[in-house]
Amino acid sequence: MRRSVSVLGGDPRQLCLAELFREEGHRVHTWGLAPPETELPLPEAASGDVVVLPQPLSPDGVHLSLRRGELLLEDLWPLLAGPGRTVLGGRVDPAAAASAQAAGVELIDYFRREELQVANAVPTAEGALAAAMAATDRTLQGSQCLVIGFGRIGKLLACRLRGLAAQVAVSARRQEHLAWIRALGYTPLRTDRLEGCLRSFHLIFNTVPALILDRTRLEEIRPDCVIIDVASAPGGVDFSAARELGITALQELSLPGRVAPLAAAQAVRDAIGHILEERGEPI
Amino acid sequence: MRRSVSVLGGDPRQLCLAELFREEGHRVHTWGLAPPETELPLPEAASGDVVVLPQPLSPDGVHLSLRRGELLLEDLWPLLAGPGRTVLGGRVDPAAAASAQAAGVELIDYFRREELQVANAVPTAEGALAAAMAATDRTLQGSQCLVIGFGRIGKLLACRLRGLAAQVAVSARRQEHLAWIRALGYTPLRTDRLEGCLRSFHLIFNTVPALILDRTRLEEIRPDCVIIDVASAPGGVDFSAARELGITALQELSLPGRVAPLAAAQAVRDAIGHILEERGEPI
Amino acid sequence: MRRSVSVLGGDPRQLCLAELFREEGHRVHTWGLAPPETELPLPEAASGDVVVLPQPLSPDGVHLSLRRGELLLEDLWPLLAGPGRTVLGGRVDPAAAASAQAAGVELIDYFRREELQVANAVPTAEGALAAAMAATDRTLQGSQCLVIGFGRIGKLLACRLRGLAAQVAVSARRQEHLAWIRALGYTPLRTDRLEGCLRSFHLIFNTVPALILDRTRLEEIRPDCVIIDVASAPGGVDFSAARELGITALQELSLPGRVAPLAAAQAVRDAIGHILEERGEPI
Amino acid sequence: MRRSVSVLGGDPRQLCLAELFREEGHRVHTWGLAPPETELPLPEAASGDVVVLPQPLSPDGVHLSLRRGELLLEDLWPLLAGPGRTVLGGRVDPAAAASAQAAGVELIDYFRREELQVANAVPTAEGALAAAMAATDRTLQGSQCLVIGFGRIGKLLACRLRGLAAQVAVSARRQEHLAWIRALGYTPLRTDRLEGCLRSFHLIFNTVPALILDRTRLEEIRPDCVIIDVASAPGGVDFSAARELGITALQELSLPGRVAPLAAAQAVRDAIGHILEERGEPI
Repeated sequence: MRRSVSVLGGDPRQLCLAELFREEGHRVHTWGLAPPETELPLPEAASGDVVVLPQPLSPDGVHLSLRRGELLLEDLWPLLAGPGRTVLGGRVDPAAAASAQAAGVELIDYFRREELQVANAVPTAEGALAAAMAATDRTLQGSQCLVIGFGRIGKLLACRLRGLAAQVAVSARRQEHLAWIRALGYTPLRTDRLEGCLRSFHLIFNTVPALILDRTRLEEIRPDCVIIDVASAPGGVDFSAARELGITALQELSLPGRVAPLAAAQAVRDAIGHILEERGEPI
Repeated sequence: MRRSVSVLGGDPRQLCLAELFREEGHRVHTWGLAPPETELPLPEAASGDVVVLPQPLSPDGVHLSLRRGELLLEDLWPLLAGPGRTVLGGRVDPAAAASAQAAGVELIDYFRREELQVANAVPTAEGALAAAMAATDRTLQGSQCLVIGFGRIGKLLACRLRGLAAQVAVSARRQEHLAWIRALGYTPLRTDRLEGCLRSFHLIFNTVPALILDRTRLEEIRPDCVIIDVASAPGGVDFSAARELGITALQELSLPGRVAPLAAAQAVRDAIGHILEERGEPI
Repeated sequence: MRRSVSVLGGDPRQLCLAELFREEGHRVHTWGLAPPETELPLPEAASGDVVVLPQPLSPDGVHLSLRRGELLLEDLWPLLAGPGRTVLGGRVDPAAAASAQAAGVELIDYFRREELQVANAVPTAEGALAAAMAATDRTLQGSQCLVIGFGRIGKLLACRLRGLAAQVAVSARRQEHLAWIRALGYTPLRTDRLEGCLRSFHLIFNTVPALILDRTRLEEIRPDCVIIDVASAPGGVDFSAARELGITALQELSLPGRVAPLAAAQAVRDAIGHILEERGEPI
Repeated sequence: MRRSVSVLGGDPRQLCLAELFREEGHRVHTWGLAPPETELPLPEAASGDVVVLPQPLSPDGVHLSLRRGELLLEDLWPLLAGPGRTVLGGRVDPAAAASAQAAGVELIDYFRREELQVANAVPTAEGALAAAMAATDRTLQGSQCLVIGFGRIGKLLACRLRGLAAQVAVSARRQEHLAWIRALGYTPLRTDRLEGCLRSFHLIFNTVPALILDRTRLEEIRPDCVIIDVASAPGGVDFSAARELGITALQELSLPGRVAPLAAAQAVRDAIGHILEERGEPI
């Protein structure tokens, strides 16, 4: 069913998203994304049946995420209230959710969909590999690689590293994860017992948002090792200790939007589709 | 720490398990496994600090699983009661659990450990592949394969089929699983919408314990298709309809103990190790 | 272009081949394959434009390979002579080739086509894996596997073993092959320096038709190791020494026709297609 | 056996090479690589038993490849002549080879070693993947990829693309290569019949040094397709037509030295080792 869709604010990912909806035949208005002279004023642009706001919805809980200019959420909500509207945003913080609710807007957080997070893990893993390739004088082939953590990103990283003919060890805490690591043919290590095992690695990918690679462990690592940290800030590496020890440690954040905005937009599109399908309003 | 271990009843897997404990230096007694003249009488054999019973613990909730002879659980429990004993069994049904508790025996079910189930999924997947190889005139390479379900076994089957250069589609119900199927590079299908998609497959592996391949769907399948059903009984295939339609449909049950008793025993060994470690009684 | 095809002698693979030609719309006669009452007498059956003889063409250089009865090649050739006939056989020995030529029959050996040998390596590799799965108490996952030789079968075996999550080492003699083994991520070993490296392997696949695993090397192998030898007879293993040492060593010959006659027939079909296409007589 | 090694001229790869020899305990002199004040004058620097010249040996057949300054080969050869010296260079053109011979220097071309070219194909494949990741808005996962050519680089690219969960088609001319492509599970296409098949691809990797992607074929390709050409200059793409059609086509040359100088140096080290071993002068 053709619908009218408003895509408001955000980054290039939102532009790709608007384009995806257009290609499917929906009537799409953007605001805050394209050159201003090509966009309608906000009240008209925001009038779609389905309104898609960016991820994160807001950098501070008060304003909408925008590349230029600014818009208070409290000024946006009145334009989106009313029956028959479906309003979706990503990574909605509690303050923003509360202000929406107070204004009578039911705001759905598409970032909570597990399938979106799985889909986002793919460009994150690819971006981490690209960063590793760029940062090292070696080939991934034949490198001793350690992936710390066996969640979404860890699973995909391990799988792709093996596909690139690297030697892959994966560390985890839970016995269940260790059993999976074994079943899939990687070398299992325990994250809480990494001491004494770190010296052999040429590349370490951290996916765990906790201080795993502290100074003591970094001192054990070979100086030509490259560390790629994709855990959410503040990450899992003592970066200043790494600098002092001469170890290259790179924090790679927000990879999906950076390395593959089209894939990231498609993931949002799919998640929104599933949400609306489950609500009986397929798009 | 060296311990005395009693391994009572069961199948060849239990024999392998006894051997594993012996190789580690523990004092091990078996009962009901080796030629009777080589084993001690039950009361002595059952006197270990750690007592390992088979999986399933009992075929009927009343007797111990045994290859020959019979032993009532109510006759066994008094031999295992008492402080300082750790008694473990697999797939313990409620009746047996109740009778143990009534007799003052704390019975731990090692089969509930997720890592055991993951480890068991490996020989199950390998056994399913071996069955498929034996049942078809084709090579797996180049065959169009469908895996129904993306749980433990489905994940491992899909991964190994691709490793054998088959064309792999996987069906699931949950959007989260479909996102994983896509992220790992398989063709995603929805289990509830398989109609119209089934004709192309040369091999179908079912892992879902529900009647997925009913007569209507079987009628759509090509007659030279081979179906391997590894879901617990009664499985997910209308076997009599398959027979009438001339489709080869094989029910493969209890694969771990059959195809790789050593691996299956090692999985039990590891699970017991984790259980005892978490209880502060490492073995 | 529809043609008349004669498929004479051989094993179930030839029957599959006849069926493949039939499905493509060619007029096909078989002889020595189906129940005699369903086949035409040899002179009529052998009258096709394209005549396909089995592989090996002859068990002894004198008779055609046949499942029952016997036919002297010198009695067959006169039926196949004459302009406009294309006669193809597999693994043609020099004596048979000479007798055909003397009788005015141009006999083309389809077995010499490299693409046929590559295609045959696939069921050989799968058959070797199936044999290994059946012969061992372990899972392939996690097993230490050695593949001796990195020719067609060695390449495919190594690739599939890794796909099954085994630990894979490959031995070769040539530096070029060792570089490939490294580039693809396997552990490289030198076939002429296997001494001292053999003890760790649970599974050894030999693909080299030379006595690689002699008594000295076998003595180094662990007794629960399983050896699968797919090299042409007499193979690469001192089988009697293996027996004495209690090592399971299996000679697996002619796997393609045994494990996947349909795939083996398709490979012959394709090779014949390429031969005829290159001769300007496409079929 | 410890030797004295001269590493003269070239790029960072040669520096890595010098370092590798040093780590093995050899006495190493470089020239034209490190800051001049740290190097001996050429006559002393060039006095090693083993002299390693860069690849290509010479940019023009007359001078040595150097990052700064210049040196005529005819001035170099007299320093390297004499018994007991082993002189090696890479990609030696006929003019340079002739001048060396005339000066009494036996010049060995290590670039001709097949194992070096295989080893170099690894960083080339990884560099091509990194270039593709950087150039596209998509993820490699799920992208329709075509690899043109199934030589060393094509083989490794196809294998790694599948490892990254891309959909992989490979084109080749020879039936033997097509059989391998099939056996390894990729979609086979014929390079001489690509017309009509090109529209679906998101990524095309060319490895064939011939004009495969001419204007006619480029017109068939979707405008958002990215082409990575790793064939030696002038490559296999009509780059000006690609520009006109708005297709991103990148020529990626000399990837090993650029993306993984350490791996490239190790490959040269290994090749030199094999050459000297075969000559009975192991290093």
